[in-house]
Amino acid sequence: MTVELINTGSELLFGKILNTHQQWLCRRLTDLGYSVTRQVAVPDTGESIEAAVRDGLSRADLVITTGGLGPTCDDLTRERIAALLQRPLHPDASVAENIARYFAGRRLTVPPRTRVETMVPEGAEVIPNHHGTAPGLAMTVDPNPFRPGGQVSRLVMLPGPPRELRPMFNELVVPLLSRWFPREEEFVCRTLKTTGIGESSMEERINDPLQPLVDAGMELGYCARVGEVDVRFVARGKGAAERVAEAEAITRRLVGSNVFGVEDDVLESVLVNEFRKRGLTLALAESCTGGHIANRITNISGASAVLLAGYVTYSNESKVRDLGVQEATLTAHGAVSEETAVEMAAGARARAGTDYAIAVTGIAGPTGATANKPVGLVFMAVAGPGGVVAQRKVNAFDRETFKYLTAQQAMMMLWNALHAAA
Amino acid sequence: MTVELINTGSELLFGKILNTHQQWLCRRLTDLGYSVTRQVAVPDTGESIEAAVRDGLSRADLVITTGGLGPTCDDLTRERIAALLQRPLHPDASVAENIARYFAGRRLTVPPRTRVETMVPEGAEVIPNHHGTAPGLAMTVDPNPFRPGGQVSRLVMLPGPPRELRPMFNELVVPLLSRWFPREEEFVCRTLKTTGIGESSMEERINDPLQPLVDAGMELGYCARVGEVDVRFVARGKGAAERVAEAEAITRRLVGSNVFGVEDDVLESVLVNEFRKRGLTLALAESCTGGHIANRITNISGASAVLLAGYVTYSNESKVRDLGVQEATLTAHGAVSEETAVEMAAGARARAGTDYAIAVTGIAGPTGATANKPVGLVFMAVAGPGGVVAQRKVNAFDRETFKYLTAQQAMMMLWNALHAAA
Repeated sequence: MTVELINTGSELLFGKILNTHQQWLCRRLTDLGYSVTRQVAVPDTGESIEAAVRDGLSRADLVITTGGLGPTCDDLTRERIAALLQRPLHPDASVAENIARYFAGRRLTVPPRTRVETMVPEGAEVIPNHHGTAPGLAMTVDPNPFRPGGQVSRLVMLPGPPRELRPMFNELVVPLLSRWFPREEEFVCRTLKTTGIGESSMEERINDPLQPLVDAGMELGYCARVGEVDVRFVARGKGAAERVAEAEAITRRLVGSNVFGVEDDVLESVLVNEFRKRGLTLALAESCTGGHIANRITNISGASAVLLAGYVTYSNESKVRDLGVQEATLTAHGAVSEETAVEMAAGARARAGTDYAIAVTGIAGPTGATANKPVGLVFMAVAGPGGVVAQRKVNAFDRETFKYLTAQQAMMMLWNALHAAA
Repeated sequence: MTVELINTGSELLFGKILNTHQQWLCRRLTDLGYSVTRQVAVPDTGESIEAAVRDGLSRADLVITTGGLGPTCDDLTRERIAALLQRPLHPDASVAENIARYFAGRRLTVPPRTRVETMVPEGAEVIPNHHGTAPGLAMTVDPNPFRPGGQVSRLVMLPGPPRELRPMFNELVVPLLSRWFPREEEFVCRTLKTTGIGESSMEERINDPLQPLVDAGMELGYCARVGEVDVRFVARGKGAAERVAEAEAITRRLVGSNVFGVEDDVLESVLVNEFRKRGLTLALAESCTGGHIANRITNISGASAVLLAGYVTYSNESKVRDLGVQEATLTAHGAVSEETAVEMAAGARARAGTDYAIAVTGIAGPTGATANKPVGLVFMAVAGPGGVVAQRKVNAFDRETFKYLTAQQAMMMLWNALHAAA
């Protein structure tokens, strides 16, 4: 079973935006055991969309399009696909109701232009949009005029905005795909999320011990990102779950202290959940990360029970005023020093009255370096019931990467402190 | 003149990595006035690569491939293109020298597998790689067996690693393109960045007034993201710059208070730059945005001169302790109220001693709603030399979208306060 993905949007071809749909959908489809054999991006012109869909339908069992379902004049996907497959468009009452509800909830009147979003090609199934106005559409193309022998293909149109597309895919398209393409054999995919270890070191530690399982047909994959390496096991057929479980056990035995979660876990989610489970509280004192850690922690629902206060102490004055760092410490060691990091963490913990506090102070760059303090130098500290621990890192990257990686390291310090205390 | 981009790499179809080549190359080509009409990603299999190149050559004047030029067994682009075009491969001495120099500089011996990188299809031009071993390759396909009438196409193969591809493109491919495709006409592309107005409202306001310019051949495009709509003008030929300038003037006249920048500007960058230009300082008091605004502001180099302190006051205690909000205000109106937002903004400004302060307090959800305070309700305030202004919004979205959109609205309030003061 083959899948082709068509991303519509002139902004993609102008290079205005990154195609995050490609990665997200390819990742989800791969994890579900489907094979994406081609991805195409085309501009918002009728001819381009029609040509891409025709090509896709001539080859693939499933064609997924993204974008072009909205209300403006460059949203042409629905109309051009309906025309290509000679399916007249009819207004759908359930879609109109959803749109009315959407705008009523925001105390706005329904813009007349949204009427086009209620139009559904004959024979298509509406995929309700719980986070926007334009629904997704699903069609069975049978007979398929573009495929040798008229072989059937399926076609799914998804709206462009990621916050509409992603829940729609997870909640409504995944069940549809299981119905259309029932799994023939067992398929298991498991991802372990790790941090604090590079891809080659990871490979050196676990490759050989996992080799017997790989020889037995399990796929072993790595995916390295900034401050994280995913280890992914895929197995098919009888005994797949057992092989993957064994691989996970071996890996946890060898690099367990680097494993912070599974699947889509992120450090901030495992931290918030662990803090809630234990009834603990947290404060943050961020200089160089500038609120990045607070932002990630507060992305997690339930963070309000955990994070009592965060301080973005970009200036020396605020380090003294808000965290109680000693003027003498700043004078003797500078704002970017282990001593300052330790006082920031202890000060934030005391001031906010929390169980734990994280502090980071460093030089995000590109400016701010001195003779013995290079761009990327950062000190971080974790204060807890057992005292304060600190570490020094040099994360010589661009500003945003620096913040991200430093946050990973600081959150992993907290994770390790929590587990040392348990 | 049309360009098609082919990205090879199974990791793209597995969703392991983001296709940053697409954005980068499309952006560069667009800025140079070339029109990318299709982008395709295919796995590292010989058949997929051949099929994609054949398709590309059947349509486009220029086909650019990325990846698959390295020394490993899944690097098949060079071989499969040579086979497709029936060009025998010959070893090239200049490439071998570059590879020898590359490894000598790192005191390493040349791996035997790199020999494949010295092979050049007959008639192809070598594009030297100053940052790696595999050179780029440029070919003129004339006659072109895949295009109607044998019409000539050009083919450029680029190596996959971005730090090799990008300088190679800028330094060596751009001059090659000017030689192959001399510019025949003027080309202008301009993007206005707006916020606080939806895509359909924008269209209703400016579409008709811009119609005469569109009739004269100017392209008008919209790109809607959360809390932002880009308006893009593209014109070609004599008078292109004038048509685009007129379109910009009309748009600014009609929706000027929503325009915060141009091209790649983001609200946080225009704010930091404006604050620096005027020598002003800022404090932040964030409840429901949880450090999101601080994080975005501190992504901008130079923010340390502007942002003196940020407070993430998730708890009532920290609103009182760190910002001086009155207990009585919290009791009478609740933490999510205009009164609290006003006191937070004034308190942060006073405490940090800044010119301006932003405060936000609301219910990010999914939990926390009460009978008369729904999820998404948010109050924001800006305190400045001229006093405090506040506004109420209902941003009923998922948590991250809520934070992003609320931050957009709060930053736009600050932007408008700055301009009212100017």
